[in-house]
Amino acid sequence: MRCNGPPILKNNKKIKVAYLGPKGTFSEIATKHYFSSLSNVKYIEAQAIPDIFKLVEEEIVDYGVVPAENSIEGSVNITLDMLYRSPKVKITGEIVENIQHNLIAKSRIKRKNLKIILSHPHALAQCRRFIAKNFPNVKLVEVESTAQAVKKLKNIRRAAAIASEYAAKTYGMKILARNIGDYPNNYTRFLVLGRKDSKPIGRDKTFVIFSLKDKPGALFNFLKPFAKRNINLTKIESRPSKVKPWEYIFFMEFEGHRKDKKCIEALREAKNLCETLKILGSYPAFKS
Amino acid sequence: MRCNGPPILKNNKKIKVAYLGPKGTFSEIATKHYFSSLSNVKYIEAQAIPDIFKLVEEEIVDYGVVPAENSIEGSVNITLDMLYRSPKVKITGEIVENIQHNLIAKSRIKRKNLKIILSHPHALAQCRRFIAKNFPNVKLVEVESTAQAVKKLKNIRRAAAIASEYAAKTYGMKILARNIGDYPNNYTRFLVLGRKDSKPIGRDKTFVIFSLKDKPGALFNFLKPFAKRNINLTKIESRPSKVKPWEYIFFMEFEGHRKDKKCIEALREAKNLCETLKILGSYPAFKS
Repeated sequence: MRCNGPPILKNNKKIKVAYLGPKGTFSEIATKHYFSSLSNVKYIEAQAIPDIFKLVEEEIVDYGVVPAENSIEGSVNITLDMLYRSPKVKITGEIVENIQHNLIAKSRIKRKNLKIILSHPHALAQCRRFIAKNFPNVKLVEVESTAQAVKKLKNIRRAAAIASEYAAKTYGMKILARNIGDYPNNYTRFLVLGRKDSKPIGRDKTFVIFSLKDKPGALFNFLKPFAKRNINLTKIESRPSKVKPWEYIFFMEFEGHRKDKKCIEALREAKNLCETLKILGSYPAFKS
Repeated sequence: MRCNGPPILKNNKKIKVAYLGPKGTFSEIATKHYFSSLSNVKYIEAQAIPDIFKLVEEEIVDYGVVPAENSIEGSVNITLDMLYRSPKVKITGEIVENIQHNLIAKSRIKRKNLKIILSHPHALAQCRRFIAKNFPNVKLVEVESTAQAVKKLKNIRRAAAIASEYAAKTYGMKILARNIGDYPNNYTRFLVLGRKDSKPIGRDKTFVIFSLKDKPGALFNFLKPFAKRNINLTKIESRPSKVKPWEYIFFMEFEGHRKDKKCIEALREAKNLCETLKILGSYPAFKS
């Protein structure tokens, strides 16, 4: 996988980067891909997504990497909610990882002896057909992450985990079956958080969060300044405001940098129609 | 709570209604509110949301009630995905329930003796401040539903559950503290599924699912026929198509019945801009 790399780092300063642990998660894989061109990185394992936002917000780390969206499961709601609630955090980059699930155990084990499969609920759901076909009677146990599932194998008999090859390697386990996911197009998009966004490179995206006045055509009118300038939306989503029931905030991503002339104009026009508008930053679009 | 009631039932035929069990869930409360005006209902407990869709689809029940959206947590993704995937299912009604969380135990127990609190992950999250303040050191255990948490109390010592007053009553348990949620505006909206939608009553909503051709302004152009007729959107959301990464399907709800003249026109115009458009039905808007 080719990586966009962190575009704003040019000197040799040591940087600190937080990712969602434990060791062996897809988050760790994505983070290390993204920063692979740098040798002076200190990686910090965080226990939960809100902790990563807090570490960036309080300037304890320079960057944080958070899962934002999976091509099967959809958005990671806690990430969207934290983007809304973290005043200082900007998005400085993105990275997309192909998610390949594997069946992993302590040692070669006969199929009929396997009694338990552990993994993150999403991974279990994404391998449902494989499990139904091969292990119709095993007990499925949900744990916090795919890596955690592999880590726990040490202390459980007749168990396997579903996780990445990297997780198997990290904890010295064996792969029983490779690439067992039901969906071939399984990707997760991660956002790289910082306190400044990135300079334009000509292939940029911009992320905004907004809320609208409640009247017919509000969303249509908000989109008009983008549509008339041929600005392509790459994502739009809504989440509850949590303040008033059935009042929503919107998360939108579009092509272009917030410093491009047409984006400046569109954002200025759209802003007048919003209750609130927060520009989370512009960053190079991922290229595989 | 006043209830819209099931509008299409006029004769005395016995009807079957499926809801998400076990006994004591907020789903059961909502279902029984909705059908409270009828005496000839047989209620059927389902174990999971996809089962309810299947029971309606295969004509084993007449209606099914599924949670669709919570005012704090947002949409129930599995419900949206199943609406997309169930060809025969229509939405015939909606009901909104106020969610009040309570701390429940087998018997009065001293605060310092309480070691474990069980509930659905959303309920635990929604009572985080109460727990942090009063029980900073208890172990939190996630289970499938709030009702399941109460049911499990029977076999666990020094434990409490977070659930509805109705769940406490159902399982003969005591309420230790009432209304412990962090958010005063906690509501869940349930959809009533059937195989036909409802007749217009003059206060209707319509639910559609669509996918768009990938080009700039696609969503803007889709919304135009609704905006120019002053049709108010009450919800718009996107979910991954699961077929091609970063391709989305949209879930939209608007005011008006699909048989209203302006809705017919808007839907006809919008359809030309879609890859796919599925009209899930019109139904009376909930009125509390």
